[in-house]
Amino acid sequence: MIVLGLDPSLTCTGWGLVRVEGARLSHIANGQLPTSSKLPIAERLLQIQQGVAAAIAAHHPDVAAVEEVFVNKNPQSTLKLAHARGCVLAACAAGQVPVFEHSTRIVKKAVVGTGAAQKEQVQAMLKVLLPGVKVTGPDAADALAVAIAHAHLKPHGA
Amino acid sequence: MIVLGLDPSLTCTGWGLVRVEGARLSHIANGQLPTSSKLPIAERLLQIQQGVAAAIAAHHPDVAAVEEVFVNKNPQSTLKLAHARGCVLAACAAGQVPVFEHSTRIVKKAVVGTGAAQKEQVQAMLKVLLPGVKVTGPDAADALAVAIAHAHLKPHGA
Repeated sequence: MIVLGLDPSLTCTGWGLVRVEGARLSHIANGQLPTSSKLPIAERLLQIQQGVAAAIAAHHPDVAAVEEVFVNKNPQSTLKLAHARGCVLAACAAGQVPVFEHSTRIVKKAVVGTGAAQKEQVQAMLKVLLPGVKVTGPDAADALAVAIAHAHLKPHGA
Repeated sequence: MIVLGLDPSLTCTGWGLVRVEGARLSHIANGQLPTSSKLPIAERLLQIQQGVAAAIAAHHPDVAAVEEVFVNKNPQSTLKLAHARGCVLAACAAGQVPVFEHSTRIVKKAVVGTGAAQKEQVQAMLKVLLPGVKVTGPDAADALAVAIAHAHLKPHGA
């Protein structure tokens, strides 16, 4: 099974692909889709969507996993995130990849062992869980984390 | 000039097309894109995006207009709206239709003459401004309203 983890954001969406064979995980690829704030939001959203579509077309994931989203302390940031997240989800549907949602707490717990883990702890665990991985950046790291969490939580895909 | 007005929502996105010739407006088409709450959100978003893409492909609008969005009293509803709105904007970018955003208040003021207009007043004005129009439903009405507002505010498109 191949899991596509996604960390949507208007500024820079992260993606990461993990292969799951029984209890064994291995890294396939990861990347980030930065968009320029000088472009209209509609263009940026299309770029994000096309980037996710390209990752799906290149690697044929069986499932996708993404963190749940809530309105946080900065509503305008959350609105932008939700615009990007909608486009990411639609790209998965267009590629016929079912999407599963997991809470941030569950993702951290699955990767580090505690739902209160810091970002640095999550990134350190990635190197343990995916030997040899080279992570493109923090957004790709978050995407790989949600992919790993999905593999742990749903070892048979759904 | 042809203006595509859009009223995004996960439940039912409205769209409406208006032709602008000098000060004269005329109705071209309008419709609604309802999605089933039984489907996964990713599928619903893809349906919305494909519906908007179909309206663009059929009518070749020069510009699109959509209301601005803010986090309101129901943050979860606003999040769903923002997911749908992201897909609607990406559909416009994919169709190379530039998108303009106007506040709800400005739209009401442009259509009815007051920013505090009720929905019923907006819908009544549609029949005056677009003689012979048959409006598919309230979401299509809101979409036509934002198209008309854009035509009044930006009579030459941008």
